[in-house]
Amino acid sequence: MTLALEGIRILDLTRVLAGPYATMILADLGAEVIKLEMPGHGDDARAFPPHVAGESAYFMSLNRNKRSMTLNLKQEAGKQLFRDLIKKVDVVVENFRPGTMKRLGLDYDSLKTINPGLIYAAASGFGQTGPYRQRAAYDAIVQAMGGVMSITGPAGGPTTRIGTSMGDITAGMFTAIGILAALRYRDQTGQGQMVDVSMLDSQVAILENAIARYAVTGTIPEPIGNRHPSIVPFESFATADSQIMIAAGNDVLWTKLCEALGIEDLVDNPLYESNELRIDNYVKLRPLLAAPILTKTTKEWQTILDNAGVPNGPINNVAQVMQDPQVQAREMIIPVNHPSAGILNMPGIPIKLSETPGSIRQPAPLLGQHTDEILANIFGYSPEEIGALKANDIF
Amino acid sequence: MTLALEGIRILDLTRVLAGPYATMILADLGAEVIKLEMPGHGDDARAFPPHVAGESAYFMSLNRNKRSMTLNLKQEAGKQLFRDLIKKVDVVVENFRPGTMKRLGLDYDSLKTINPGLIYAAASGFGQTGPYRQRAAYDAIVQAMGGVMSITGPAGGPTTRIGTSMGDITAGMFTAIGILAALRYRDQTGQGQMVDVSMLDSQVAILENAIARYAVTGTIPEPIGNRHPSIVPFESFATADSQIMIAAGNDVLWTKLCEALGIEDLVDNPLYESNELRIDNYVKLRPLLAAPILTKTTKEWQTILDNAGVPNGPINNVAQVMQDPQVQAREMIIPVNHPSAGILNMPGIPIKLSETPGSIRQPAPLLGQHTDEILANIFGYSPEEIGALKANDIF
Repeated sequence: MTLALEGIRILDLTRVLAGPYATMILADLGAEVIKLEMPGHGDDARAFPPHVAGESAYFMSLNRNKRSMTLNLKQEAGKQLFRDLIKKVDVVVENFRPGTMKRLGLDYDSLKTINPGLIYAAASGFGQTGPYRQRAAYDAIVQAMGGVMSITGPAGGPTTRIGTSMGDITAGMFTAIGILAALRYRDQTGQGQMVDVSMLDSQVAILENAIARYAVTGTIPEPIGNRHPSIVPFESFATADSQIMIAAGNDVLWTKLCEALGIEDLVDNPLYESNELRIDNYVKLRPLLAAPILTKTTKEWQTILDNAGVPNGPINNVAQVMQDPQVQAREMIIPVNHPSAGILNMPGIPIKLSETPGSIRQPAPLLGQHTDEILANIFGYSPEEIGALKANDIF
Repeated sequence: MTLALEGIRILDLTRVLAGPYATMILADLGAEVIKLEMPGHGDDARAFPPHVAGESAYFMSLNRNKRSMTLNLKQEAGKQLFRDLIKKVDVVVENFRPGTMKRLGLDYDSLKTINPGLIYAAASGFGQTGPYRQRAAYDAIVQAMGGVMSITGPAGGPTTRIGTSMGDITAGMFTAIGILAALRYRDQTGQGQMVDVSMLDSQVAILENAIARYAVTGTIPEPIGNRHPSIVPFESFATADSQIMIAAGNDVLWTKLCEALGIEDLVDNPLYESNELRIDNYVKLRPLLAAPILTKTTKEWQTILDNAGVPNGPINNVAQVMQDPQVQAREMIIPVNHPSAGILNMPGIPIKLSETPGSIRQPAPLLGQHTDEILANIFGYSPEEIGALKANDIF
């Protein structure tokens, strides 16, 4: 074994983002992922712009390390092949609207009779239970309903959507965790189970101290821009050329920051000598910090503050992130060569394992690229048998 | 076994958020988590406001299901007990600045000689390798450096920090995934390993299509408020009393939306008949949608749009989230009774397992609450032996 999840076979019916993100994490760590797609159409994300040589960059960046097999689950012969496949996999993952798999006769209750050790994971907008279970959700809807927008945005300004689809991504991550936990239980007991993750639940789970603060104080948290809710100074400032984020999380760092900014006199000013006082006197304090910071560039301040040991960082755009020396050193931007689209840079693997490092072993598949290979290798069908199956028009 | 991760013992040296979030996820699913804290002081988060009866709400909401043992790792007798404990655990997790455990003589290379099956997980700001590895990071710093702020904010407005600490939380989630993957490998081979997760890497990993878009188009993504980067209409609108998020992700939903808003004439308008055209003519289109939406309340629109099958949702604040019927039905807000602080509402468990549902079995521990219990149960020490150990002043 050279990969942590080697030997785990996942049948992946997911589309777009939440589900594919979950199976990408598992595939990166070594799971064998068979992406099952509708013939002709495939994963909706294959149509998402921008495209390179006909291939969606969005799709390619989420489906590396997966093989694609087409199968029409609306036809009886397709369903039968699906049931046969269920016997040969450890995990099935889907992110349909709840009820879809039941209408196909392929829900967990049906499938577990075929394979009692099966782990069946479903990621959905609102979950398999509860009054909203039948509703469609998109990332923007659950970000809105889940509360994170209500605490994101400029102070006093509009509630703001997170610019990346955290509603999907967090659900994908919790789905991956649920699958791995269920696999551990299956390995111990032989018993499979259903993993039910909802995007809305996932949003609630990431609110963390906003809920605790509200529960105790009764004050509803609001957008506060780039400030920390309970530490000062801990926010972004304009520099001579851009911005810098500064995080002076305790009194020692406060002293170092004042010295670095050349405003040592503030250290002994009784108005600012504790975090509580700095919060209370924030309106007075902020311009005293902002004025000197405005006089040098971000790069100059980075050097000064790094030398002083004060946590700081630039507000990087996506191009700057991709060129950052640490991001590069950690191989967090990886060029992946696709046979038709060429090289595409995509995020690397954030889980670094010393003995079984994850890897990007193959680019995203073309639609149905591995159908024959899977029929031959997993089912052991001969070319003749595959030809006969194809007469059913299910691929 | 009634919990998925029953039988897994984790020695948890983590503080504040990223590490405690990882071990909370694993504890909720059944792992036994021993939180090892410095005598006297403990997890820094114990000091974070607001407090109830002396207990930090922040700390309580992240440390349920864990037991606390104090141990001074700077004393030789403490180190020895730690090494003894390492023989009896499956996983150790820490989120110190890289190098801290090595200075104590307790880094992975030392500990694996004691327990070759040990999984050693480290969550840090920038990772164990690379030019920034020694730097301190806080959530705000990695949100700034990792690019997510550069794509979050009002259109044309300031780059904006996500209001919840996604830098910590995503690192915590990837750490949990890494631990579970390493456990699977350990179960198969007996071999432990190190799991190295960085907050900055985690931010890059969640940028998803922003990187793909930039890699293909060369255009640097910017804040676009609450709009979707490539679908129209898919954003928030002001209503008569607040706001509503509407996501018409395809042409069928576009038609339904126009009908629901009473602007059916737009359906056949050639300016808006495809998503591409709606993007091109956005400036013209937006006010035509905004005007009717402003005439009714959010609740009225929710009913109308739900009936029409158009995905929509209110922008809930934290109080509204906690009262939401779906959030309630999914038990995503759980009251936990703490012996001194009383009942505190906190986020529930977003991973719903059918056979081995996670549970909140005990409130967050007092500092050192379980030291004697752990010395007795795990080490098998008698009260006399515990007394003798205490003479060392290491607890």
